[in-house]
Amino acid sequence: MALVNEQFLSLPGSYLFSEINRKVVEYKSLHTEASLIRMGIGDVTKPLVKAVTDAMHQAVNEMAAAETFRGYGPEQGYRFLTEKIIEHEFASKGINLSPDEVFVSDGCKSDMGNIGGLFSRDNVIAVTDPVYPVYVDTNVMEGRAGNLLESGQWSNIVYLPCTADNGFVPSLPEKPVDIIYLCFPNNPTGTTLTRTQLKKWVDFALNTGALILFDAAYEAFISEEDVPHSIYEIEGATQCAIEFRSFSKTAGFTGVRCGYTVVPKTVTAFSKTTGNAVLNGMWNRRQTTKFNGVSYITQRAAEAVYSSEGRKQCMENIAYYMENASIIREALKGIGFEVFGGINAPYIWFRTPGKEDSWHFFNRMLTEINVIGTPGVGFGPSGEGYIRLTAFGSKEDTQTAMKRFQSWNY
Amino acid sequence: MALVNEQFLSLPGSYLFSEINRKVVEYKSLHTEASLIRMGIGDVTKPLVKAVTDAMHQAVNEMAAAETFRGYGPEQGYRFLTEKIIEHEFASKGINLSPDEVFVSDGCKSDMGNIGGLFSRDNVIAVTDPVYPVYVDTNVMEGRAGNLLESGQWSNIVYLPCTADNGFVPSLPEKPVDIIYLCFPNNPTGTTLTRTQLKKWVDFALNTGALILFDAAYEAFISEEDVPHSIYEIEGATQCAIEFRSFSKTAGFTGVRCGYTVVPKTVTAFSKTTGNAVLNGMWNRRQTTKFNGVSYITQRAAEAVYSSEGRKQCMENIAYYMENASIIREALKGIGFEVFGGINAPYIWFRTPGKEDSWHFFNRMLTEINVIGTPGVGFGPSGEGYIRLTAFGSKEDTQTAMKRFQSWNY
Repeated sequence: MALVNEQFLSLPGSYLFSEINRKVVEYKSLHTEASLIRMGIGDVTKPLVKAVTDAMHQAVNEMAAAETFRGYGPEQGYRFLTEKIIEHEFASKGINLSPDEVFVSDGCKSDMGNIGGLFSRDNVIAVTDPVYPVYVDTNVMEGRAGNLLESGQWSNIVYLPCTADNGFVPSLPEKPVDIIYLCFPNNPTGTTLTRTQLKKWVDFALNTGALILFDAAYEAFISEEDVPHSIYEIEGATQCAIEFRSFSKTAGFTGVRCGYTVVPKTVTAFSKTTGNAVLNGMWNRRQTTKFNGVSYITQRAAEAVYSSEGRKQCMENIAYYMENASIIREALKGIGFEVFGGINAPYIWFRTPGKEDSWHFFNRMLTEINVIGTPGVGFGPSGEGYIRLTAFGSKEDTQTAMKRFQSWNY
Repeated sequence: MALVNEQFLSLPGSYLFSEINRKVVEYKSLHTEASLIRMGIGDVTKPLVKAVTDAMHQAVNEMAAAETFRGYGPEQGYRFLTEKIIEHEFASKGINLSPDEVFVSDGCKSDMGNIGGLFSRDNVIAVTDPVYPVYVDTNVMEGRAGNLLESGQWSNIVYLPCTADNGFVPSLPEKPVDIIYLCFPNNPTGTTLTRTQLKKWVDFALNTGALILFDAAYEAFISEEDVPHSIYEIEGATQCAIEFRSFSKTAGFTGVRCGYTVVPKTVTAFSKTTGNAVLNGMWNRRQTTKFNGVSYITQRAAEAVYSSEGRKQCMENIAYYMENASIIREALKGIGFEVFGGINAPYIWFRTPGKEDSWHFFNRMLTEINVIGTPGVGFGPSGEGYIRLTAFGSKEDTQTAMKRFQSWNY
């Protein structure tokens, strides 16, 4: 008789965005004339840039002709792409990587979920709070989370609060942990760590044998000098960290699907039977066994992100979104809100006036000024009393939304 | 200290195709003038059909314009595609499915690997022998395989021999099993089951509570009336089977990446805590948590496979490959070989003359007639003494290879 994975069943349904959607649909059905502005979901709105779509048309033409058709490619990604990634993202920052340390995939979310298969159930996981739910949910599925507590947290997971009180810089854990998820620039708070702050985590990992899973999906939005784009800018990180990157926000690939994961050959985890095990080889085996690579057309599109036109065009889009971020930041600060993020990330995280609870304030935003945000508590208990806004809308919508905030007697 | 998944480490390196490649490269370096014909790897060679590339160009244009750009799509796939799949693949055969029972993905291999996460480590797995290595390897990674035996088989896996002696029809297992992998039309043998033969497996699963994971990646190559394209043509299968499909061979998508998995809402597995658990909801939760859907452009390409031009053009390519299969079958039979497959599948499986061992005969094919096959033993002990050839080459190469067999004093 086929038996299910019982841990999987302990995972409650995904609640946050479906609950937001339910409330929006309900409101809209009662107020059909309302002009809602959506600032809740982290999806891009600008179309693909010309360098990218030109490359895609070209690749489609290649796939249409017998002489240039490509069937199965390397599961790890084509060299033409991994070499460009290394050149522009890492070598340019003095980080040495070889092409077989970079694995192209259909996105960060897949890789951050699938990487768990390499590790024992006995690892203690640490995550920041608030946190991107995928890190936790995938560990629940794999049996590392323990029991669901009334707080909505899990008994075996170590949560590292990030709030205005600690400047959104998580403290090192007080008990031993084995695998640490860090996402900087952070989703949902939009905050970052400086090199010095990140170095503490690398040193901690090196000293304790912990592994850092570093989500750098938003690095392209960094504007400040002292904020590292890659964890490998920190000495020793190639011994203890795996980094996850994505073209989703950098190049508007949310509907195209391409990302990559860097697994330096020097990163190991401990095996009771063989001592140190090299994670690069394990991830390679995982990907060649359970994955068949990314569409040739998509990989040519990603390569075009690194052409001179591609870089220029993508940077223009990022600048557009970051102007929105600035509009939001300044407007909300102007009316006296405590505002975080939005300088090195497309997310703005603000404290509700009077520390009103997140869902209550979300509801008032929806019904009183018709602006849709995301309740911070949806990302974890330390998000209570915060709202996340995203900068991915149009400039016009962003400005209109801010005018509504400014004239709102909240 | 980060701890690895020890079971993962017990998996030996992937050997078969790298070993073939090593031998070919070595031979080629010593005989640079040799004109090698590759009939070993199951990759298509004909370019994408016009209906598909037209749809891709159109979709790229949509992604280039703000009004038609698409960001994140549904992780399960767009309705425009799942509805077409249901109409053409299932409803046309009297099988009723709803769109939320079909999950679009980047391919069969990913889904067949990832599905294991839904199940307990305690399940006993059954596979046919010879077998597509991914079924076994993914279960090793997840701790269900036990220990590696000297035979190359695993102590906890039940192997179901498929040889000429039983007409490549596996017998029902003698001991209880929980999850059964079936692939028909079969890779590597190219053989099939009739409706009556498959019904025995469905009845067995219904009677014992076992689950069938049915790989139907090659169904488009079926030419005989009595061979089911879908397991759901068999009464009761929607209670006990998950089916995996792919556009890779049907439409030449090996470099494009699209497949789909059918999980009827009536399929359950047993939970010690909750009784029967509905696998549709679990797979939905897995995909929404660890996957972000397939490229919009790829989904439009897959949709175009179902247009009237697309169907006609894809069928022409399949007919081309199946003519190759027929050329191979007839030529090898003509020189007295025992030949299987090649009627409902693009694979031909033949017994080596005098039951010479697979690798020895592979080497002689390579060095004496410069034709590259795949040693059957690479797919499992019951493949010893067989060779797999694929029909995916050009007609000219296929004919030349057969002439070499015909004039070979093997």
